[in-house]
Amino acid sequence: MSSTSSRTPVPFSREQLEQVLKRRFFYAPAFEIYGGVSGLYDYGPPGCAFQANVIDTWRKHFILEEDMLEVDCTMLTPHEVLKTSGHVDKFSDWMCRDLKTGEIFRADHLVEEVLEARLKGDKAARGQAVADAGEESDDKKKRKKKVKEIKNVKLDDAVVQEYEFVLNQIDGYLGPQLGELIAKYNITNPATDGPLEPPVEFNLMFETAIGPSGQLKGYLRPETAQGQFLNFSKLLECNNEKMPFASASIGKSFRNEISPRAGLLRVREFLMAEIEHFVDPDNKKHPRFAEVKDLQLSFLPKGVQEVGSNELVVKSVGEAVESGMVDNETLGYFIARIYKFLMKIGVDPSRLRFRQHMSNEMAHYASDCWDAELHSSYGWIECVGCADRSAYDLSVHSARTNEKMVVRQALPEPVTVEKFEVDIDKKKFGPKFRKDAGAVQNFLAERTQCELEDLAKELADTSKVVLQVPGVESDVEVGSDLIKIAKVTRVEHVREYTPNVIEPSFGIGRILYSIFEHQFWSRPEDKDRSVLSLPPLVAPTKVLVVPLSNHADLSPLVQKITASLRKEQVPFKVDDSSASIGKRYARNDELGTPFGITIDFDTVKDNSVTLRERDSTKQVRGSLEDIIKAVKDITYNGVSWAEGTANLTPFETASDEA
Amino acid sequence: MSSTSSRTPVPFSREQLEQVLKRRFFYAPAFEIYGGVSGLYDYGPPGCAFQANVIDTWRKHFILEEDMLEVDCTMLTPHEVLKTSGHVDKFSDWMCRDLKTGEIFRADHLVEEVLEARLKGDKAARGQAVADAGEESDDKKKRKKKVKEIKNVKLDDAVVQEYEFVLNQIDGYLGPQLGELIAKYNITNPATDGPLEPPVEFNLMFETAIGPSGQLKGYLRPETAQGQFLNFSKLLECNNEKMPFASASIGKSFRNEISPRAGLLRVREFLMAEIEHFVDPDNKKHPRFAEVKDLQLSFLPKGVQEVGSNELVVKSVGEAVESGMVDNETLGYFIARIYKFLMKIGVDPSRLRFRQHMSNEMAHYASDCWDAELHSSYGWIECVGCADRSAYDLSVHSARTNEKMVVRQALPEPVTVEKFEVDIDKKKFGPKFRKDAGAVQNFLAERTQCELEDLAKELADTSKVVLQVPGVESDVEVGSDLIKIAKVTRVEHVREYTPNVIEPSFGIGRILYSIFEHQFWSRPEDKDRSVLSLPPLVAPTKVLVVPLSNHADLSPLVQKITASLRKEQVPFKVDDSSASIGKRYARNDELGTPFGITIDFDTVKDNSVTLRERDSTKQVRGSLEDIIKAVKDITYNGVSWAEGTANLTPFETASDEA
Repeated sequence: MSSTSSRTPVPFSREQLEQVLKRRFFYAPAFEIYGGVSGLYDYGPPGCAFQANVIDTWRKHFILEEDMLEVDCTMLTPHEVLKTSGHVDKFSDWMCRDLKTGEIFRADHLVEEVLEARLKGDKAARGQAVADAGEESDDKKKRKKKVKEIKNVKLDDAVVQEYEFVLNQIDGYLGPQLGELIAKYNITNPATDGPLEPPVEFNLMFETAIGPSGQLKGYLRPETAQGQFLNFSKLLECNNEKMPFASASIGKSFRNEISPRAGLLRVREFLMAEIEHFVDPDNKKHPRFAEVKDLQLSFLPKGVQEVGSNELVVKSVGEAVESGMVDNETLGYFIARIYKFLMKIGVDPSRLRFRQHMSNEMAHYASDCWDAELHSSYGWIECVGCADRSAYDLSVHSARTNEKMVVRQALPEPVTVEKFEVDIDKKKFGPKFRKDAGAVQNFLAERTQCELEDLAKELADTSKVVLQVPGVESDVEVGSDLIKIAKVTRVEHVREYTPNVIEPSFGIGRILYSIFEHQFWSRPEDKDRSVLSLPPLVAPTKVLVVPLSNHADLSPLVQKITASLRKEQVPFKVDDSSASIGKRYARNDELGTPFGITIDFDTVKDNSVTLRERDSTKQVRGSLEDIIKAVKDITYNGVSWAEGTANLTPFETASDEA
Repeated sequence: MSSTSSRTPVPFSREQLEQVLKRRFFYAPAFEIYGGVSGLYDYGPPGCAFQANVIDTWRKHFILEEDMLEVDCTMLTPHEVLKTSGHVDKFSDWMCRDLKTGEIFRADHLVEEVLEARLKGDKAARGQAVADAGEESDDKKKRKKKVKEIKNVKLDDAVVQEYEFVLNQIDGYLGPQLGELIAKYNITNPATDGPLEPPVEFNLMFETAIGPSGQLKGYLRPETAQGQFLNFSKLLECNNEKMPFASASIGKSFRNEISPRAGLLRVREFLMAEIEHFVDPDNKKHPRFAEVKDLQLSFLPKGVQEVGSNELVVKSVGEAVESGMVDNETLGYFIARIYKFLMKIGVDPSRLRFRQHMSNEMAHYASDCWDAELHSSYGWIECVGCADRSAYDLSVHSARTNEKMVVRQALPEPVTVEKFEVDIDKKKFGPKFRKDAGAVQNFLAERTQCELEDLAKELADTSKVVLQVPGVESDVEVGSDLIKIAKVTRVEHVREYTPNVIEPSFGIGRILYSIFEHQFWSRPEDKDRSVLSLPPLVAPTKVLVVPLSNHADLSPLVQKITASLRKEQVPFKVDDSSASIGKRYARNDELGTPFGITIDFDTVKDNSVTLRERDSTKQVRGSLEDIIKAVKDITYNGVSWAEGTANLTPFETASDEA
């Protein structure tokens, strides 16, 4: 296959790509005949096959290669689970209403768009060139529709600088800060210039009621991760109690986006593939790190962003971990594995970077996070997140349910430890606290050593401790007649710990769309003849079978060849229409079909067929068996066109002129 | 593999099966540490792999084999779509409330369960044997929990007969009839004997709101079919306008069951695989019918059920279609293909029947329907539906949206037709009916020839027609000054028609559970050693690799063998624990792993290994390469154990005693 860089004399046109994707039904707005619903899309046959091939590759690259435990968990999720995980309180975006028109804006997107438009207007007023949609170099041109008109107004140099600083940090602002920016920069409804209400939080989960009574509130899951966490103890048992290990899940998740635009890049229902790698918090080394440490990648660490820059740092994964820029080997290992996966499925490496989240931008559960961002005409977009969720999720679910979610590890030799312990007089405790007794007891059992030290002091000083126990309304007083808290010496044989979680999380739709942009180009000789250079491994169809004509002698051969392809499980299509060979190939170039097999009258004589390669339009000739072998080797075994066809005869007539 | 019938001296115990499925985490109640939510389950690693293999087989058996167009459509569905399809009004079950306790019962299940309990009590009172859970021969023992206690009360012979008649027809009653039965037979809350309110409809769709305004009402789809119908025109274009063709979709659907019990058989979120085969209503022949016509199947046609019997009719698919029992070849073809698929994945043919829906039981969209029902300890359960949905869905969506959803077929030669046509005076029509003009015009355009004949007569007789137009509140009067309806003669070159749809629809979870029951058994020599005889094709893991001991000489061989298996993409697990070989095999028998490869000290010398077969515990010995070839042939190429191991050496030590 030819490389991406050698084939772009015709400038990329998003409009042309979208027109092909729609016409060939890669995907389309869902419920289109009803006018559609924004943020919802259906995948048609080629899009669905492309998606299935990417998922199949993902499963082999991650689950099979690393013996992960795949699970398939429920999407409907009761309120209590997502309350505990923090999603009910924190999984939200900030929105501003225009009370007059009823319009709703996502606050960060609005600020971004308005400031960008003003910067453009400033450039125009200064007589500088303004980039147009297809070639924008600016990083964040994701949403285009609200600001319709660019006014040519020159800004003060200091204002320009301030705007640029804000834009480079836009993902880091919370609602109140966005409200301040809106006030400070006098941002209004772009269509009417009307005033906007201050930003308010909008929870992104879809809510529903489970069961006929309507009383059990639930949500559609916003991520597949929670199902994996809740099953942690069962999974650990499946893995014979061995650590570290990973679970994985592929499935749909849902986010009720405030104002989804940008096609597949921001949708309300989407396919995710998520890995939860459970690891010892004291040892985040990875046994296979050596295999990836020399891989050179482009990083955008938080320190660079926080001074308002976006300059990439190129270094090896090994150096990145050694320097502490990437926190640990396991995180570095997965960053490298993500890179390798994206290369297999057709991402352009020059349009991929790993961006670290800034501290104020991180999800509520994360302790460190690197996004694989892919560049497209919409700017740089997060397509894979790789977060260290620490012990957050397991800890909160365990605390809420009183189910232990820990690893118990036999120590190589017993250890003597001194620690504070609580001794409860259960006979008195129960009658005194009644229904709250369990909660108070659990509360005490969960205290850290430092907390127990303080409580011991309080108990010694005042003969009681006063506790705020979650779920118990008033303060709880426990007197020294009921408990003792003292330092004791114990010999321990087992270490018990809550694992940390490293989570690589893939947004499949975003990746698919980015690959479309990375691999779409037009033939220089005819810009209407577009090509989608999907790698054969993930292309929806591998082979187009083309009989030269409708002559009766050729149709038994079509039968024979398709039977062979079916037997060898090579996905194919037949085009026996009356269009010219060149036209038939062109129609399949835009579908991403990498190979064409032409049947002609020589095939009748000697069983030989011609094989055409999509990107170069090169052709070779050989027996049907040899041609199918070449197709399978190139598609599934990572063999290049040159190697795969070395023993076949070059065929000179340019296929596309036939 | 040994046949099902040869291995069941130990009676089936559902309790033992469920204990294995839970312990090995095939599946488990979702959110179990939070107490669970009824009707929601998570699949653990073996269940998830089994499901993935069944889906992969389905995709090959149906989509690839028959060139179907796979799509992946949105689950969130706006109200209007499901209002049009009839689901908002008709997709419901009947429930009864006990106002005192707040309990809610599904009306048909309650009637069924109470009458069954009374019949049991009658049998006991008459001193007849009552079947126990594992062996019930009665057909409908699906739900067991509400009626806790069987009272030994003898009934009149006439009452017994009446109850039996009702039970054989239970799927056919609507709410008011169920209400009558409840009153007539004095059915109350089984726990408290309290009175119940009459049955009311409960819609089974989960409702949610799409977007930040909360004003766009939507539902989670109750089937994948609607997405396929809405995309019909795009799919027809993908298929180069050729008919017939099929689309297919694999994905989750949702039904808010009133009171889900019976494990995987009645759940609120489930994986479906659905095919929509679009066919010419005037020609439902199938080109490949000859391939299946001799297949003998067990049918339970509606005529038999309607006289209160459940005796099976065994005949060939060809005879079934010829006699008119099965309506047409396409329906018959799919019934046969469903059978063949179920055989591939491990269904016991003696526990499969095709039951026709009775007229009053059919879904609102269906004109004929045959269910593939699988027998388990819960009775006979619908696992695959095969419905003829006629032109229902395409017609209603087309009428609602004014989008044509038709096939236009060039006629071999022009045809002269006489037909009624409506001629509208558009200049007057618009001003007269204003906003309703479009609706009235469409209503007229959609009338059948018979309806037009009647309208023509009405117009001639009364100089006007009076129409009830959906969406227009009052009756619409159209005078003869505005329209003419007359018979005209036309030469037509194109035939335009709305296709009919044959829909095979698979409930994957129900199939998986039924296969567990069909393939679970215990070794006669030790009833605690259970075996899950899943066909190798769909077994979660194909090979267990077992080193004889932890001796250092063997571990490089484990590495080598697992590397070979990985390269050949054969899913495997290693068990290098210190348990005995027999114990390690037993642990994997219950996981359904069909093969074991044992590594011993001879392997070090000559590269030979032992291969063990799960069901027979037979063993053969050969080189690693030959053994892997045998495993692949038996697993993926449909070769039997005897054929696949013919050139290997029988190995006499019984593996399970080692």
